[in-house]
Order: sequence, then structure tokens, then C-alpha cells
Amino acid sequence: MAEQDFMTDEAMYDKALLDSLLLNNEIDAFRDEFLELHTYDQGAYFTQADDELRNQMYHLLSPKEVAELLETTEMEDEDYDHIFDTMDARYASDMLSEMSFDNAVDLLKILPKTKVASLLLLMDKDASEEIKALLHYEEDTAGSLMTTEYISISEMMSVREAMIHVKEQAPKAETIYVIFVQNDKKKLVGVISLRELIVAENDAYVEEVMNERVISVNVADDQEDVAMIMRDYDFLAVPVVDYQNHLLGIITIDDILDVIDEEASEDYSRLAGVSDIDSTKDTVFTTARKRLPWLMILTVLGMITATILGNFEETLEKVALLAAFIPIIGGMAGNSGTQSLAVAVRGISTGEVDEQSKVKLALREAGSGLLSGLCCAVLLFIIIVLIYQTPILALIVSFSLTIAMTVATLSGALVPLLMHRMKIDPAVASGPFISTINDIISMLIYFSLATTFMSYLV
Amino acid sequence: MAEQDFMTDEAMYDKALLDSLLLNNEIDAFRDEFLELHTYDQGAYFTQADDELRNQMYHLLSPKEVAELLETTEMEDEDYDHIFDTMDARYASDMLSEMSFDNAVDLLKILPKTKVASLLLLMDKDASEEIKALLHYEEDTAGSLMTTEYISISEMMSVREAMIHVKEQAPKAETIYVIFVQNDKKKLVGVISLRELIVAENDAYVEEVMNERVISVNVADDQEDVAMIMRDYDFLAVPVVDYQNHLLGIITIDDILDVIDEEASEDYSRLAGVSDIDSTKDTVFTTARKRLPWLMILTVLGMITATILGNFEETLEKVALLAAFIPIIGGMAGNSGTQSLAVAVRGISTGEVDEQSKVKLALREAGSGLLSGLCCAVLLFIIIVLIYQTPILALIVSFSLTIAMTVATLSGALVPLLMHRMKIDPAVASGPFISTINDIISMLIYFSLATTFMSYLV
Repeated sequence: MAEQDFMTDEAMYDKALLDSLLLNNEIDAFRDEFLELHTYDQGAYFTQADDELRNQMYHLLSPKEVAELLETTEMEDEDYDHIFDTMDARYASDMLSEMSFDNAVDLLKILPKTKVASLLLLMDKDASEEIKALLHYEEDTAGSLMTTEYISISEMMSVREAMIHVKEQAPKAETIYVIFVQNDKKKLVGVISLRELIVAENDAYVEEVMNERVISVNVADDQEDVAMIMRDYDFLAVPVVDYQNHLLGIITIDDILDVIDEEASEDYSRLAGVSDIDSTKDTVFTTARKRLPWLMILTVLGMITATILGNFEETLEKVALLAAFIPIIGGMAGNSGTQSLAVAVRGISTGEVDEQSKVKLALREAGSGLLSGLCCAVLLFIIIVLIYQTPILALIVSFSLTIAMTVATLSGALVPLLMHRMKIDPAVASGPFISTINDIISMLIYFSLATTFMSYLV
Repeated sequence: MAEQDFMTDEAMYDKALLDSLLLNNEIDAFRDEFLELHTYDQGAYFTQADDELRNQMYHLLSPKEVAELLETTEMEDEDYDHIFDTMDARYASDMLSEMSFDNAVDLLKILPKTKVASLLLLMDKDASEEIKALLHYEEDTAGSLMTTEYISISEMMSVREAMIHVKEQAPKAETIYVIFVQNDKKKLVGVISLRELIVAENDAYVEEVMNERVISVNVADDQEDVAMIMRDYDFLAVPVVDYQNHLLGIITIDDILDVIDEEASEDYSRLAGVSDIDSTKDTVFTTARKRLPWLMILTVLGMITATILGNFEETLEKVALLAAFIPIIGGMAGNSGTQSLAVAVRGISTGEVDEQSKVKLALREAGSGLLSGLCCAVLLFIIIVLIYQTPILALIVSFSLTIAMTVATLSGALVPLLMHRMKIDPAVASGPFISTINDIISMLIYFSLATTFMSYLV
């Protein structure tokens, strides 16, 4: 019986053993041990191996075996580039031909154009034609995610014929669990799951047992929309068609898992003002270099707030205590603005917020900003009066807090909604940016009020 | 040929038509039209229907048909509660028996205990036993996600026998695409995909063609770990075992999609300091009520900063311009702290940050905080000198900025890492909380420095 691998943080392979088998060129022993592993674990071993070990692996493993492990492994773009630099070009092109077309395309998109051209030249003609066609689809569209290795049957086949056809096509297909039905004009007319096919009567016609209401995506659709459809409908695969409903390819659930992860990460990074959230392995310098552009812009923006406050120097000189409440007013505006920004951005991404509900959402946010601003203001008023016995100051601070929080909550929701309507990438509406804008607005409100009512303060 | 449904924002069903068929009690016409739809669209129609229409639907649809549409629909907890309140108890229990056990359990967990007990009493005994067993697993564990409706075969079967067995079990199984192999002691010894079974020789034994290295999860494992495994290994289903490797159930990819969404939302909400990110449909009052507790706590915390600044009133009176740089120092500390908080929280969730890499991550964040703090400080120094011609003030502000950003970046990473080590729910380390703490620290640094070097400023 195979040893049971319970889930642990440890590697699921014996590194020392594999290393030594490789270095001693023990072909059979290495292959026995290595190919027993799940391809994900093979990939984990491959990822941590150095160039010498990897080169030895290319000797002991077929291009197909390496293709399979690379397909379940995620590495940094630079790493893939390096792999292709050190791999024999013929071996590399054989390996690419063995991959699913969509995965081969994903890899080729990373490599420099000249390298791609020479690899395609070495490849067998059928595969290179298919891959070239797929390379042309725009990033983040359904076309860029799809593969052409689907199983399709004719509506005129019997269930028995269909099953034989599926069996024949199985080795080349990305999934055999969802089977698409085309008519004689190559148009998509139906879909049937393998499960339905298996339980159907052998003598029935495909036409009779298939589902005619096919949900498909257009080749130009955004990947985010595709992900939403697959999540909502619990699909294992969705067909991709052109505007005349010709079947072009399919997108499978494993690719969509990555998209969902990616899109959620994007929203998350935006909120934090970082470009690349998954970079826990970066060095100090790379991290600083990635974050600096944003931080520099925010510094310059922050100087706007400072200059505005500088103009109120006279007010500050008269009542120095006013300065003590700068952080709380700015901070609370920032906090409530970030909250409504988060809700709006996520609502747009998940499709929960549509055209009709935009105005409603903005109004709700403004209302809730006013309401929570009022509550916090009352609390703040009481605390300030208790500590400083200055009701007029407390009133100005509390009043400023209420307006600042209302404006911040409204702008937090409005900015991403407006950008989305104007088809601008809402990346500019990142959390720190919104906070800094709110800082400027809230300081203007606070010190204008304080200057106006100065006579009551001194 | 069925009309092709391209992806649009519009509903995929004809509401007016369905409404009128329902209200006129046109049984056959309604069933024809309605059951043509994908269960997700059926669910969308059901969700927006009022009680009258729903009651009519219960008359025209079987418990099984309603079960199927509810299984692909996500509603708020209150809505489910309401549905069971208005549905006949016998119909409800029939409907629950028709669901996958894991989905029935998810629904029952929402309902009050007394209602659950009476529904289980009405159910047929086998189903109620299975559901009762599943109800006992703790929230967010593999046990709470799994279903017992899997297909398992014996290692001694031939491929032909196995295929017949699969066909027989298909109607009752949650998935037939992954088949688990048990030995005579009911232990899990292998796994084979339907695809592998289909292409295998009919006369071969299951034992010879199955994969012996099964990756399984323990029934007590956290759902987040299960999601990571399924994403990494591209599984459609993963087996759940007890500590003696007995097969207890399976978890399928559709349930994991929801978990991945949920976990990403959780991290995102934490960063923004909101409890419930997907609530774009809430009213003003609900929204304000949900966010107020956090905002009130932050107001009180903000008063700590205000009190500290109040103690520096004398310093502020002498150099009022110091106040102008409060927002920029506090804001930049907040921004860089949020960035490192985001990276640390996400790194912990995705499993990228483990015990060994924790110290490394904290050090890297501190280093990058220092480095980017220095760069921003130089920029700020130049701007201040240009605008105010006050090099000493510029020096104090820039120096404070550097220290504040370094401390903020370090604490942004350290707080969630420490909480994770101490097994405390890192929900307390939300973005606004970290920002407020950083406010306090950065103001202390800034005004201590300013007070110390006061003689150079005036």
C-alpha cells in the first residue's frame, strides 16, 4: 500500500534521495521515485532544484513529462525565462507541443518575441498553427484563456457513437467531462456532461439528450465576466464562441481559479496601494523600488495638505490646541473613506453593483457617513469637554468631524463608481490616494471653520 | 434550435412571462419554460419572486426541482429562514432530502435548532442519519464542507465492473469524475479519474490502473488549507479521511470556489475595517450600525493621539508651523504601514509565509520601510526648504518621517505575524487600527524631536 500523505507543511518528496539519484544518473530508480509523485510535487522539486539538477532532469525525463510538471507549477516570469535559456531549443519546442495549447501560450507570452519565433519554427506544424492563432488574443479576454483541445460531437450521433468518439479524443482533450455539440455548420447547438452521456440510453440520439440552452461566452469577453459566470453556474468548462456562435474553444475551471485569485488580489492591492501583493519573497531593494513611486506621489500630495495648513499659521498661533485634533479628523475621514471605497470597488468587481444601483450606493454611503459621523462627533464632543472644558472648541472639532466623515464616505464610493462609468482603470482610486485627498478636504473644512469662529475661541 | 444566450447584464429569463404563467396556474406551460432554464437562472427568478409567486412555485414544482435551484443560488441567511417559515414542513423536509448532504447541512446550520429537529424528524431515516452526522463537524473544517455522496470502488474490481458500478451510482453521487478506491477494511488506498477509467483496458484490475499516492485531507483540517491543496493540485474533488485513513467523504471544487472567495473577502474586509464587504444592498441604517462599533473605537483611540499632542501645546505655541506637517507624517506612516500589513496578512492566508520566513519578512519590511522612508524624506526636505527656507524644520520633519515610516512598516508586518503565532484571530490587526497606532507612534516621535531641538527652531 502506498504511504498516505497527510497534509503537512513539509515537502511531499524526499529531496535528498531524488538529488542523489539524479546526480548518480540512476535513470530507472529516479524515474520510479519521481513519476510516482503528483505533478504538483514534481513541480515543487523542480522549482527548488539548481541548474545542474534541472539539466540532469531533462536527460532523464521526456519533454512530455517535463511539460506535465510545468503545467501544474507556478513560477515567476524571470524563472521561466531562465528555464528556456538553459534548455535545449529542440527539447523546449517538443515540451511546448506536449502542453495544452492554452498553457503553452501562457508560457510563450512571457518569452521575448525572437525566442518565441524560433521555438514555433521547431514545433510540428499543426501545433504551431494552433498556438500562433491563440497568441493573438488580447490579454485578459476569454480568448486568451481558452484552449482548442475540447471534445465536440455531432448532434446526429447516437449516444453509443458519441461515447466511442469521446474515448478516442480523451488523450488529447483538456477535459472530457463537458462535451459540446455542433451542427453541420460548426455552430454550437448543445452541451452534455459526460455524466449525462453515461446514464443516457445507448440508442438515443445526442440531439435528444443534450441541453439546448447553452451558456457560452464571447471570445472578446473580459476574463472577470467569464469567472463570474463559471462561479455562479458551477461550470467545469464553458464554451467560447465568435459572434456567429461558432465554437472556438473552451475555458476550464482550473484556469478560472487562478483568475478569481488574481482579481481578488488586484482589488486588495489597490486598497493597500501596493502593486504586487504576492511578493513575499522579494528583497529589501525590490520591495522598496516597487512601493516607492506610490509613496513619492503621496509625499507630494501630502505637501498640499501641509501648504494649506501653513496658510492657517496665524490661526494655529492663536489657538495651538487646534493642532491636537488634526490627526483624529484626518484619520477618521480616512477610515470611513477606505470603508466605502472597499465596498464600492468590491461591488464593481463582483458585478453586484450595476448601473441602476450606483446612485443608490453613493446615496447610501453618504447617508451612512453622515449618520456615523454624527455618532462619533457626539462621542468626541463629550470627551473633549471632559478633558479640556472647551465647549466651543469641542463643537468646532465635532462639527468638522461630521462633515469630513460624510464627504469622505461619499467620495470613497463616488470616485471608483465614476471611474468605472468613464471606463478609466480604477487603480488610481487606491486606498492611500483616497485617504490623502480626504486629508486635504477635511483639513480645509476644519481650519476654515476654526478661522471663522476664531473670535469665540480666544 | 435554442436561442443562444450571450453574456449580458440582463436577466436570462422572461420575468413577465413566467409571472403570468404562474399566476394563471398554467402548470405545463410554466414547467416547460422554467425547467428549460439553467438552475442558476431558476434561482435568480426565485430570489426576486415574492411570497405569493413562491408559494405558487411550490405547487407547480417538485421538492427535487426546488432543491436543485436552491443549491445553485446564494441568498442571505434571513432569506433562507423566511423561505422555511413559509414553506410546508413536509415539502421542506422532502426538498432537503433531495439535496446533496453537504448543501442540506449548510442550509440547516442557518435555521434555529427547533426547526432543524422537526425537519429531520420528517425526513426519511437514512438521509436524516447522514445529515445529523455531518451537522456535528465544526464550522470551517474539512468535515463541514464534505459530502458523503461519493463513488468508491474496490481495488479488486476489473475496469469493466468498475464502470458498471459508476453508472449505477452516478445519479446519487456529487461527482462521478473522481472515483475513490477502498480496500476491504474501508481504508482509502487509491484514486482514479473517470477519464483514466474510460481509457483503461476493460480487463485490467482497478488495483493496476489506480494512483496509489492519494492526496487527502483530514476531517479536522481547516477549510483554508483544503482550498490551497485543491488550487495547487488542480483537483476536482479531494477525499476526506479520519486519522486511520478511513474514507469519510469528499469535497468538490464548487464548494472550494466559495471558500476561496470567502477567504479573500475576509482579508480584504480586514484591511478596510468593515465587517461585511458584500453588503451593497444594505440600507443606510444597517450600514452605519455595522461600521459604527469600529469607528467609535477608532475615535477613542484617536483621542489618545489628540491628548499626546495636547501635551505638546507649548511647543506648538512657539512654532505653529510644526502643525502643518502632522498630516503628512501621520499619513505616510499610515500608508506604508497598510502596505506591509496587506502583504503580511495575504502571505499568511495563502500559506506563502511560514514559520521560517516570518522573521525574514519582518526584517525585509523594516529594511524597505527605512529605505523608502529615506527617499521620501529627502524629497520632503527639498520641498520644505524650497517653500519655507527653514532647513532645521525641514530636517526635523524629514527625520521624523523616516523613523515613522520605518516603525510603521515594521509594525504593519509584525502585528499580524505575532498574532498568527499566538493563534489570535488577526482580525484585530485591521487597516484602520494599524493606522491609528502608527499615528500615535509617529506623533510621539515627531513632537519629541521638535521639542528637543526647539532652541534651533525659534
